[in-house]
Amino acid sequence: MEKVIEYLENNKEQNLQELFEFLRIPSISSQQSHKADINKAAEWLVENFKKSGIENAKLIPTDGHPLIYAEWLGAGTSAKTVLVYGHYDVQPVDPINLWDNPPFEPIIKNGKIFARGSADDKGQVFTHIKSAEAYLKTDAKIPVNLKFIIEGEEEAGETHIEEFIEQNPDLLKCDTVLISDTEWFQAGLPSICYALRGLAYFEVEVEGPNRDLHSGTFGGAVDNPIQVLAWMITQLKDKYGRITIPHFYDDVLELTEEERSNFEKLPFDLENYKKDLDVRELDGEMGFSTLEKVWTRPTLDCNGIWGGYTGEGSKTVIPSKAWAKFSCRLVPNQNAEKIIKLVLEHIKKLAPPTVKVKITSLSGANPVRIDPDNDAIRSAISAFKKAFGKDVVFMREGGSIPVVEKFSQVLHSPVVLMGFGLPNDNIHSPNESFAVDNYFGGILSSAHFYNEFSKI
Amino acid sequence: MEKVIEYLENNKEQNLQELFEFLRIPSISSQQSHKADINKAAEWLVENFKKSGIENAKLIPTDGHPLIYAEWLGAGTSAKTVLVYGHYDVQPVDPINLWDNPPFEPIIKNGKIFARGSADDKGQVFTHIKSAEAYLKTDAKIPVNLKFIIEGEEEAGETHIEEFIEQNPDLLKCDTVLISDTEWFQAGLPSICYALRGLAYFEVEVEGPNRDLHSGTFGGAVDNPIQVLAWMITQLKDKYGRITIPHFYDDVLELTEEERSNFEKLPFDLENYKKDLDVRELDGEMGFSTLEKVWTRPTLDCNGIWGGYTGEGSKTVIPSKAWAKFSCRLVPNQNAEKIIKLVLEHIKKLAPPTVKVKITSLSGANPVRIDPDNDAIRSAISAFKKAFGKDVVFMREGGSIPVVEKFSQVLHSPVVLMGFGLPNDNIHSPNESFAVDNYFGGILSSAHFYNEFSKI
Repeated sequence: MEKVIEYLENNKEQNLQELFEFLRIPSISSQQSHKADINKAAEWLVENFKKSGIENAKLIPTDGHPLIYAEWLGAGTSAKTVLVYGHYDVQPVDPINLWDNPPFEPIIKNGKIFARGSADDKGQVFTHIKSAEAYLKTDAKIPVNLKFIIEGEEEAGETHIEEFIEQNPDLLKCDTVLISDTEWFQAGLPSICYALRGLAYFEVEVEGPNRDLHSGTFGGAVDNPIQVLAWMITQLKDKYGRITIPHFYDDVLELTEEERSNFEKLPFDLENYKKDLDVRELDGEMGFSTLEKVWTRPTLDCNGIWGGYTGEGSKTVIPSKAWAKFSCRLVPNQNAEKIIKLVLEHIKKLAPPTVKVKITSLSGANPVRIDPDNDAIRSAISAFKKAFGKDVVFMREGGSIPVVEKFSQVLHSPVVLMGFGLPNDNIHSPNESFAVDNYFGGILSSAHFYNEFSKI
Repeated sequence: MEKVIEYLENNKEQNLQELFEFLRIPSISSQQSHKADINKAAEWLVENFKKSGIENAKLIPTDGHPLIYAEWLGAGTSAKTVLVYGHYDVQPVDPINLWDNPPFEPIIKNGKIFARGSADDKGQVFTHIKSAEAYLKTDAKIPVNLKFIIEGEEEAGETHIEEFIEQNPDLLKCDTVLISDTEWFQAGLPSICYALRGLAYFEVEVEGPNRDLHSGTFGGAVDNPIQVLAWMITQLKDKYGRITIPHFYDDVLELTEEERSNFEKLPFDLENYKKDLDVRELDGEMGFSTLEKVWTRPTLDCNGIWGGYTGEGSKTVIPSKAWAKFSCRLVPNQNAEKIIKLVLEHIKKLAPPTVKVKITSLSGANPVRIDPDNDAIRSAISAFKKAFGKDVVFMREGGSIPVVEKFSQVLHSPVVLMGFGLPNDNIHSPNESFAVDNYFGGILSSAHFYNEFSKI
């Protein structure tokens, strides 16, 4: 390990310059105009694997953007195997005028690398290649076998990696899946995320009269689809903020006293949270703290609504139709498919006889909970401690990373969410950044993880 | 009269082509992009007055769209004077994809003229110019003095005609105000309307967090502006369909036993009404028949709603803001100004502390009730009988013609609502139409009205 640490210390500038090269490629996956950049980023990464000593690296075409698969199996069949997942694609950059610096011309300011993709996820996934390189350029050997699967569609609508995982369980077979695509609770507080929420997304259409009506001629006699929709939305929660869909909470795993107590110890500042959002009061399910609400409780949120006249001025219409999009965040052990079925049934039952209601499910993803009692998590705790000199905190995350559940389900190996991002990294926003210390510390953490996991 | 009738018989095609020209001008008053079309329609109408023999016709500029004033005073100072009111502006056309034919390319199908504005109100107001023309091109004389005041803002939020009436009582002095902007109870049943509902129109904005939020990261803790808006809308009516705004019903004039009994005699077919709208059940205030609901009871209807993601597919956002437009129909003796004040106050009180709510009033109009015992109404009854060979029925109307109340109040002359529209004309909706027979019969009725009113 000493030689590895020394190598990393001596190659900081080189590792920064290589990341900068990677960040300069505008690999925006959701915009067709960047298709060539996506391919360029993928090819650049394959070359970097080879340069780093991982010769067996290649592009895998999909119906969308290519996957990258790389492996180094020199630790031998009796050694453990780590599968690293990450993504080389990035979010769009608009509104471009809000960037202080061009998004694809990385610079360092105030100890942070500013560039689109710096934290999400190029900078983070790259740590695991640079740590492997440090072993290969010193010992010519890594203590574990390494596999990498890196996708280019994480920020796009449609993704092909889940299909690839399902079809290639043997190729991806491993003892743990290591992912760095999450953030710490706050700067200086290395964090391991052990649970993610799932998602069930819906669109509902309420049709009243068969045409738009004059609100003078018909108003008072005909039910109004906007008002029916508003009523239906209101019916979905009770006055205590609980979702009223029968059996919705049946499978919800209540959080343990230990979790609750751990959350309470985290340095969460409610007043700052409200101030940042500029709201006088928060809302949500009665009986839970804010962190408990966003990490451990299922939700139902309207994401969009529309119907009738929405232009300038006034139009006295009773519209024929009104629509809404809404989604539920799901928590362990809810099942997306089951919840989708419950919601579809309930909405149909809610529909009053004055209207026709159509509801469709647009997407679903299961929640994830990783039991922290395993060797991979223990290795991550040690690695963080050795690299940053700090004790790890355990946290959950309100969002979803659908691929995590797929890895768990197909490979039956524990997933470790050992991220290096910080809450103010502005991922998905202008001025995305990645702390320089977290980049170098991330490489070191990764090197320690390989070593710790091999010995445990 | 015989020559006038013969002239009208011989000029049907000409009168149709002229109306078509008028209908081709997309004079949508509520959209700034149609400002030039409004002016074009106004100028076209002034030219048509002159061509029809009413030389004294001109545009009157206002702070909004111009008024048209025209007069023919050749009947002499001892003859009676009729003031005709109408409007040359039209409603917007969206949703445009639901029109079977382009809205500003009039065509005749199944005995109906299809075009935006055909019934509301270009086709109807035009009858009174073409009837005057028939007198002037035959006798060179009309039995009454005629004044016309035609506005271009009836379908817009803000209107300037009321101010003009207030400031010009001498110019507009008359023995009756004749208005054709209403519809018959059913085809073949000439109807005179003796009461109109008023209007109070609002737009509300609900602002939650200061930016759009990721529904995974924040969902469950932050109140959702769409859901708050839906809740506020739902709170505005109780389970019996009554509006819950305090003092809202204070001034409502209950209908008389005679009116109730007259309504019951009208050939109203509830099953057909529902079938025409394609709804299984109607709705509204408990304790009133459908006609009572739409003619004599105040309402609260959402006219539009929007907020969040409304595009294709899914976006997991909690929007910062959501909006709705809604309006109340008012009945005698409610006062628009008073109701606006009640609504603004109530909405502000409803706003929960999780959001900021802004509400603005976009327009208001008082309801109207005309006592049918007067010479002008008697002349209209005769005119209808002579033109269509049918007895008149008395009805009320759910819509609003704000100017009617102003005429009554300033000119102290009886208003006659002698409309030619039919219930399935789709005014304010796609595929607006005006029955060809009612257009020609309307011109004839107007000619008879001038004659009857001069003799009575």
